[in-house]
Amino acid sequence: MNQRLQKLQTWMKENEIDVTFVTSSENVFYLSGYYTNPHERLLALAVFQEMEPFLVCPGMEVHDAKRTGWEHEIIGYSDIVNPWELIHKSINKRLNSIQKVAIEKEHMNVERYEQLSLLFPKAAFVSAEEKLRRLRMIKDAKELKIMEEACSLADYAIEVGCSEIREGKTELEVLSAIEFALKKKGVKEMSFSTMVLTGANAASPHGNPGETKIQKGDLVLFDLGVVVDRYCSDITRTVAYGDINDKQKEIYDTVLKAQLAAVEASKPGATAAEVDLTARRIIADAGYGEYFPHRLGHGLGISVHEYPSMTETNPLIIEEGMVYTIEPGIYVPSVAGVRIEDDLYITADGPKVLTNFPKELQIIR
Amino acid sequence: MNQRLQKLQTWMKENEIDVTFVTSSENVFYLSGYYTNPHERLLALAVFQEMEPFLVCPGMEVHDAKRTGWEHEIIGYSDIVNPWELIHKSINKRLNSIQKVAIEKEHMNVERYEQLSLLFPKAAFVSAEEKLRRLRMIKDAKELKIMEEACSLADYAIEVGCSEIREGKTELEVLSAIEFALKKKGVKEMSFSTMVLTGANAASPHGNPGETKIQKGDLVLFDLGVVVDRYCSDITRTVAYGDINDKQKEIYDTVLKAQLAAVEASKPGATAAEVDLTARRIIADAGYGEYFPHRLGHGLGISVHEYPSMTETNPLIIEEGMVYTIEPGIYVPSVAGVRIEDDLYITADGPKVLTNFPKELQIIR
Repeated sequence: MNQRLQKLQTWMKENEIDVTFVTSSENVFYLSGYYTNPHERLLALAVFQEMEPFLVCPGMEVHDAKRTGWEHEIIGYSDIVNPWELIHKSINKRLNSIQKVAIEKEHMNVERYEQLSLLFPKAAFVSAEEKLRRLRMIKDAKELKIMEEACSLADYAIEVGCSEIREGKTELEVLSAIEFALKKKGVKEMSFSTMVLTGANAASPHGNPGETKIQKGDLVLFDLGVVVDRYCSDITRTVAYGDINDKQKEIYDTVLKAQLAAVEASKPGATAAEVDLTARRIIADAGYGEYFPHRLGHGLGISVHEYPSMTETNPLIIEEGMVYTIEPGIYVPSVAGVRIEDDLYITADGPKVLTNFPKELQIIR
Repeated sequence: MNQRLQKLQTWMKENEIDVTFVTSSENVFYLSGYYTNPHERLLALAVFQEMEPFLVCPGMEVHDAKRTGWEHEIIGYSDIVNPWELIHKSINKRLNSIQKVAIEKEHMNVERYEQLSLLFPKAAFVSAEEKLRRLRMIKDAKELKIMEEACSLADYAIEVGCSEIREGKTELEVLSAIEFALKKKGVKEMSFSTMVLTGANAASPHGNPGETKIQKGDLVLFDLGVVVDRYCSDITRTVAYGDINDKQKEIYDTVLKAQLAAVEASKPGATAAEVDLTARRIIADAGYGEYFPHRLGHGLGISVHEYPSMTETNPLIIEEGMVYTIEPGIYVPSVAGVRIEDDLYITADGPKVLTNFPKELQIIR
């Protein structure tokens, strides 16, 4: 049994949970090593306190699941059988009586919940999600290595973006060039829709990349991430095209100061709230408090938004092994939009910054 | 009240449903004209038999929702309030007693279902999905126009793909060039992950675009689609790079003959099964039955897979206004993989083919 499953089993024993029935692609991957997007078909991992876990997947994927190293039972089903009957049998082979079932309540849909409730009409259903989020929050060495690679590709993407900036080029043209360069490096998926925003568009919280043309004196904001082996990176840089005015510079310097201070504050033992407030106070003291309308950052891993949530009210204590973003921003409509975002890994000694594109203001000529 | 909502209300009256609570982005868009991806936040549309419907969305999106022309109530909520309380109040303002609620059981998650069950502890919950799928199956003139544009961009994408074929180019290089050209045309989203597969890779049902290089004598398979105003197109073409052998030609000719016959059979009054079997028999008669392992096609619209499902057992009668794909294929491992796919709109007189890239074998020199 791998360590992640063992930790889940310990939690199940503490909470008297007979079966945990995991259904999201992300959590099945985290616990089994096998990733698939089953679309409308059922994918599930059943975990027990003591007995052997089993994986349920479409029949044509059984071979792939085995190849990824899953050593326990795999139930493949064809489109003409009812997978719930197979699941029922496999659970009954292991346990006679099911009192308490943990499921992903924010993932499982009502139709499947009704099927599961029919199989175990006397069971109480509790949520496994909080526990799975906390497990995923602490990264191991293998996860860190993959995320370092994803971050280094994100750095490269910003480099490409900067080299593409020209008078009159549209946001979409620059965006396409970035993604084209990444595809040539073998990147198959971005963490989310790539953002390239220029001038007033970057200063709007609703900005979407479009036909807006880059002009001298603009600040250009890039926000993007690369997926490597199912793990996401996420970087934001804001650069100047030609000379910018004093107001734009002041805003940039304020965001940078706040960002550096929050990175510095990211140490084991601090709380998420303290880290957020470190940046938030600097921005408020400079008079831009109302223009920083979002949280400081978010955890990062298999999902582009996961635990910890870096908000000004989260009492969660920062621990070694966490990976999260620090991304303060100031958006003054029609004046400037600036955000600077790094991905951090927390070591015993403090933060290790995984994204390395320079943060001093880059002026593109 | 728009016509789509009126049709839903008629169904609600016939089935004594007090509220239909629609939560998927696709169905909310279909009924209200407003599209958003709310991520982990709640989006919902509540529809009543007689009373005014209301939309529930994150507060910062209320303005966007209004701008799209939604004329009825909008409930915006901030991250610090419980949207379920607002929903409860708004429903109670309209109706005192709720006996029957229709929801999207395959979309709504258990956590939300529990919230809704708490609000209406005595209500029965039924599924709205079958009805919504049937409504969406028949396209109106406005939808057709958008889909024609999406199909014409898909044709263009195949043209670009063919022009990029060269000895030694990888699948991923050709794929990147296609998507780059589309982005320059303003395309922001593909219907699904673009497929460019060559040689033996195209002959495997599990093929994924990668570093495989195109070589003389290969069949190259493109499967892709473009999203325009939220509607998807979906096209497949298989072309030859240089001279191909007799076996490859025989397979191509068989697929083409089956495809043309199934298009021809696509008339109001025929069943989906009859259309599927028209193609399937031609392929079986040529001795390739076992190498055509999937359904003939699928409905197309806001989702890339929707009703009708074109299978050999579906008794559904083809009607004017349907849009679906016809995409027979033959995959003989290590020999050849060929699929030809069009998108069809059904008129009173028969099929109107929306994808127009040539289907006679194209030989790229």
